[in-house]
Amino acid sequence: MNICNGKLLKKNYLLYKQPKLLLLNRLLPYKKTGYFLLYFLFVISLAKAEDGYRLWLRYDLVNDNALLKQYRSSIQAININGNTSTVAALQKELNTGLQGLLGESISNISQPANNSIVAGTPATMKDIKAMVGADALNTCGSEGFIIKTVHFNNKNIIVIAGNTDVAVLYGGYHFLRLLQTHQHIQDLNITSVPKVKLRVLDHWDNLNRTVERGYAGISIFDWQTLPDYLDKHYTDYARANASIGINGSVLNNVNASALILTPAYLEKAAALANVFRPYGIKVYLSIKFSSPIETGGLKTADPLDKAVQEWWKKKADTIYQYIPDFGGFLVKANSEGQPGPQNYGRTHADGANMLADALTPHNGVVMWRAFVYSESDEDRFKQAYNEFKPLDGKFRSNVLVQVKNGPIDFQPREPFHPLFGAMPQTPLMLEFQLTQEYLGFATHLVFLSTLFKECLTADTYEKGAGSTVATIVDGSVENHALSGMAGVANIGNSINWTGHPFGQANWYAFGRLAWNHELNSAQIADEWIQQTFTNNPAFLDTVKTMMLLSHEILVDYMTPLGLHHIMGYGHHYGPAPWYDKGARADWNPVYFHRADAMGIGFNRTATGSNALAQYAPEVQAMYKDSNTCPDKYLLWFHHVSWNHKMHSGRTLWEELCYKYYTGADSVSWMQHAWNNMKGKIDEERFEHVKMLLAIQHKEAVWWRNACVLYFQTFSHQPIPEGYEQPEHLLAYYESLEFPFAPGH
Amino acid sequence: MNICNGKLLKKNYLLYKQPKLLLLNRLLPYKKTGYFLLYFLFVISLAKAEDGYRLWLRYDLVNDNALLKQYRSSIQAININGNTSTVAALQKELNTGLQGLLGESISNISQPANNSIVAGTPATMKDIKAMVGADALNTCGSEGFIIKTVHFNNKNIIVIAGNTDVAVLYGGYHFLRLLQTHQHIQDLNITSVPKVKLRVLDHWDNLNRTVERGYAGISIFDWQTLPDYLDKHYTDYARANASIGINGSVLNNVNASALILTPAYLEKAAALANVFRPYGIKVYLSIKFSSPIETGGLKTADPLDKAVQEWWKKKADTIYQYIPDFGGFLVKANSEGQPGPQNYGRTHADGANMLADALTPHNGVVMWRAFVYSESDEDRFKQAYNEFKPLDGKFRSNVLVQVKNGPIDFQPREPFHPLFGAMPQTPLMLEFQLTQEYLGFATHLVFLSTLFKECLTADTYEKGAGSTVATIVDGSVENHALSGMAGVANIGNSINWTGHPFGQANWYAFGRLAWNHELNSAQIADEWIQQTFTNNPAFLDTVKTMMLLSHEILVDYMTPLGLHHIMGYGHHYGPAPWYDKGARADWNPVYFHRADAMGIGFNRTATGSNALAQYAPEVQAMYKDSNTCPDKYLLWFHHVSWNHKMHSGRTLWEELCYKYYTGADSVSWMQHAWNNMKGKIDEERFEHVKMLLAIQHKEAVWWRNACVLYFQTFSHQPIPEGYEQPEHLLAYYESLEFPFAPGH
Repeated sequence: MNICNGKLLKKNYLLYKQPKLLLLNRLLPYKKTGYFLLYFLFVISLAKAEDGYRLWLRYDLVNDNALLKQYRSSIQAININGNTSTVAALQKELNTGLQGLLGESISNISQPANNSIVAGTPATMKDIKAMVGADALNTCGSEGFIIKTVHFNNKNIIVIAGNTDVAVLYGGYHFLRLLQTHQHIQDLNITSVPKVKLRVLDHWDNLNRTVERGYAGISIFDWQTLPDYLDKHYTDYARANASIGINGSVLNNVNASALILTPAYLEKAAALANVFRPYGIKVYLSIKFSSPIETGGLKTADPLDKAVQEWWKKKADTIYQYIPDFGGFLVKANSEGQPGPQNYGRTHADGANMLADALTPHNGVVMWRAFVYSESDEDRFKQAYNEFKPLDGKFRSNVLVQVKNGPIDFQPREPFHPLFGAMPQTPLMLEFQLTQEYLGFATHLVFLSTLFKECLTADTYEKGAGSTVATIVDGSVENHALSGMAGVANIGNSINWTGHPFGQANWYAFGRLAWNHELNSAQIADEWIQQTFTNNPAFLDTVKTMMLLSHEILVDYMTPLGLHHIMGYGHHYGPAPWYDKGARADWNPVYFHRADAMGIGFNRTATGSNALAQYAPEVQAMYKDSNTCPDKYLLWFHHVSWNHKMHSGRTLWEELCYKYYTGADSVSWMQHAWNNMKGKIDEERFEHVKMLLAIQHKEAVWWRNACVLYFQTFSHQPIPEGYEQPEHLLAYYESLEFPFAPGH
Repeated sequence: MNICNGKLLKKNYLLYKQPKLLLLNRLLPYKKTGYFLLYFLFVISLAKAEDGYRLWLRYDLVNDNALLKQYRSSIQAININGNTSTVAALQKELNTGLQGLLGESISNISQPANNSIVAGTPATMKDIKAMVGADALNTCGSEGFIIKTVHFNNKNIIVIAGNTDVAVLYGGYHFLRLLQTHQHIQDLNITSVPKVKLRVLDHWDNLNRTVERGYAGISIFDWQTLPDYLDKHYTDYARANASIGINGSVLNNVNASALILTPAYLEKAAALANVFRPYGIKVYLSIKFSSPIETGGLKTADPLDKAVQEWWKKKADTIYQYIPDFGGFLVKANSEGQPGPQNYGRTHADGANMLADALTPHNGVVMWRAFVYSESDEDRFKQAYNEFKPLDGKFRSNVLVQVKNGPIDFQPREPFHPLFGAMPQTPLMLEFQLTQEYLGFATHLVFLSTLFKECLTADTYEKGAGSTVATIVDGSVENHALSGMAGVANIGNSINWTGHPFGQANWYAFGRLAWNHELNSAQIADEWIQQTFTNNPAFLDTVKTMMLLSHEILVDYMTPLGLHHIMGYGHHYGPAPWYDKGARADWNPVYFHRADAMGIGFNRTATGSNALAQYAPEVQAMYKDSNTCPDKYLLWFHHVSWNHKMHSGRTLWEELCYKYYTGADSVSWMQHAWNNMKGKIDEERFEHVKMLLAIQHKEAVWWRNACVLYFQTFSHQPIPEGYEQPEHLLAYYESLEFPFAPGH
């Protein structure tokens, strides 16, 4: 019994997260005993590659001995009934998860027992209502869940309850999250109901597996081998999504191929839908508006043409034969060259409604994107509002208009889109971008939760103070039946899914906020770090701080003070504020920053494009005066002189330099902070992030140097004393070309 | 001590490969003891994902108890001296490998000890010469190694010796292979010297990471994040290559971008070279012949132009500043649209020699491809020979002419290329294709070793009987100083590297045959299966049989009896024997099969194109008579009537049907054989292969149906009785289109 006494076992748990070699050394004294082999096998089990594939569902042994003991005593068996595929998925996840976390296999029982988990719906588990209360369940809807510690029939039980199997599955994932984040479970009383109905990932994945704006390899959807080969990725993708409450997936790029609706591809999409279904995830497809012409043999795609309407109805019927719970269509129409109803003199509403009518018999929805800007003299900022506001009230009830968080295009920082608050009769679906098209691709560490929250908490004043974007989007302001949030996915076939290990956090944050936009970024970071890396408090503190500051740091070294869209043309890699060769004015950086001898910035006040007028008066009041407009939005709304006095007391030129230099310096700080984390996590991910931070620093300095030198040609002022001078001349930065930049 | 006695430990070893749940059940009796946790941790260590990433370097615990005991007693320590990066790589590989295989950590010692491994060169280890004999070492050259069990100074030692660090590294990998394949090690006396000098993988990887003819994701070389981010793939790629003796890597596609030679990309290539160097792998680059114009600002790329010559000399000097041991250039010139010396009225020799002269001061080589076919009325089969044979003797000594195994283009079966045996004064580098462009992409299980061997053992009769392609290629027939074999890689960023788990076997077989072309396919399959899957004899027997038959099976259902190049146009996916719309005659299947009312096949005898005359008289004699020509090459050389009597007694039409149906049926056999392997290996790879075999069967039936129906339109004969009729009409098969087929 010598090695199995409490002392050694305890040591054992504590060592669990330690580097392998250290462990080996500690075990050497036992080498001469027969036990060594066992220990050794245990040790090599620690050596499994931390390649990031497991995401936040790692389920490694709880390394807090007291907590582990408590968990073990409270969780001795699982009682789940029912025979649906969702119940099976839940059972498997709980068994796998608890086995990993508790280091022992948990038996499955058929009746509630003392110290057991009971998970189910009123339909599958007769005592559920009695355990949690019928009233409580009534507040849960079809997806909400309750997790509650109860004493029932003299038994201590942890109940996971919901009105549907999927709701219980969500509860199961939440319970596993409690354990992974080391929460106490003796007195649980959690009710969690999603605030938004459609929580969807949009994949800009093409049928040839390239991913538009993808920086993590190619698409995980391998259309060539579907429907026959079902890659393990498909199940693990569904598990990851379900664990954070995502319930929809648009499989293909909004710049869609008409072939996606042909039988060969519907059969493939159906195979994915079959894998996703147990996890509560519906499949949606992006469609090409001209499909009736391209694959239907019609001469027109006019939404008011009877034959076109009939074609879509039949197509919808066919789709639902393949996928009985198909979610619906995502549509990019009359935008950046895509065909749409305007080709036939019809409106977006005409187009959306035709599709909605085809889907109505099957309860499908249309997500119609508002990302439109024609070639015109009008400020690009204003165009979506101008086209869509007049259509408010004209859409069918199963249409959502999908609006990007800001008026331009997923910039490092944007003010909220003026359509939020401007279309009270229409459910507006909020579109965020998780893939870092304008935010350093997959090599910059940028936690986007703070960006998401900045938008969600912005007040539109639609119905007075408190009409935040979040409450518009969740439908509560206008009491809409439909609501939705979409995230443009950052997922590819890289082993760790997102390229940058911290890219996973943006996928995670999106899902958590789509479920509950009231969560704050610190909580989300906390959860994610603990599940993904470690519960080590020193690591948690440092890395959470890095994450929470990371977005502001990036804004500083890329687009401070309200600058926007000054990236490389087309591929959006690196700085190119000088670029002016784009075929359209509003594809050029110079259009957006408008630097000249006088100053810099886009005057969107009444003396300029007056885009500001699209907001509520309260919002206008915040931004309209360049002296009171917050620094972070200044150049979004004002063309101000180089010597404009900022809130800091510096001139605009000095402030611009200060921001660029501070941003780049802050990346050095992140590097140092990360370097101190060595040994606190696995070597693989530590080194991976370390190398990427070096790239981020190099590129932050590049951004700083290129932008400061370029804007200096207008300000004619020196870079303030104390700052290091750029390494190269401006001509060098202007000469750089990146024909093979990814995602383009 | 109860669970640590011999009996249980033994059970333990034996169970190591068993499914996890079975093990759990067996361990349940111990649940109440404190030992359970330890056992449980051991068990979960078995659950690690068999995702294929580890390739054949898995190093799992030896599950034969007697053998394990023997290995442990003979291998108690390692003595390696030296401080080069190659020595460090060897040390790390032996430590990791032995730790995994023996289940115990092996200590590193600084002097030979009893029951130790001693690995080194005469320079790093003073007793090495005495241990293995100076004469023996003299036969090893710079890459060969000796592994020998010796009794030296009263110590039992296993010596791994070579004249260079890399040679010892090769020996180390070989030694690990011995253990992984359960060889006895008490009386080792192995000398192994590579027969071919340059053993190179050609990556057709573009700078945007797409891979021409790649079916396993995108390129593992992530140019965007190089040189700063060094992906773990790079090291593991180098390890895998070194383990099978591959010593060169051409990083980019032969359809090359001129940008590869610009400083930005040379810096990236240098970073890869730094990772590969310890493993004995040199970096080569494919170059674009017009680079002096595209990136050098010159007006011409004429190889006789002084400025052009100077440009290449300077470029070579620059490259060697970045990569001091750079291997050299691979060139595709005047082929399929690529520029070359013929654009200036010069010969391939002029072009190759200019590049060779630039590389000579640095000991670099030029690998100049012979894959050329102009638009002409000449049989495409003959063109490479016609262009290159006259140049024999005109190339610099550091030029190799790189010739594909067959005269057309990596078809499922080709006769050997007639240039082998026809250019005695020129080292001919043999180019095989590992990626399955014409062999079912990454969804068909096809072991290519038998294809390679068919070519290598073919007799050219250059200097009488026995002048096989292999002995031409290894330089022994003409005593060439240079020799080489290239494999067009099947590697991508799929987690398992090659898409199909069995694709790994083709990478493995190529490396092993490039080192020693006398190995036979059964040995190679044996080694690969044992290292990659299991030593279970039932699995080994069944799967080896599948592998050894797989190539012939594919030939039967795709291109039996000498048919060739009847795949889909451009993408080469699926059957399209009817296709005749290609811009050039020799891009069309109808050009190659020439089916008509009389019969089928390409007459390449004296009454036809007379391509046969390019072979030695002995070879001509084997093929020239349609009655004696082996069935497998019949339609390569003869247009024969539908009623031609085959060796089987069937008519040609009957034989064609027989082959197509047998081929498809044989895939069913493979499916059944594989299904019987359930439980003998991990569930993940079992299911993966099972699903892919279902695709292979579906596509084999598709090939069979499409081809039989199409050729029937010429033969006007029924499909013989007893065969199931095709599911669809010919028009259906002709209507299929695959705009998103991968690799194109």
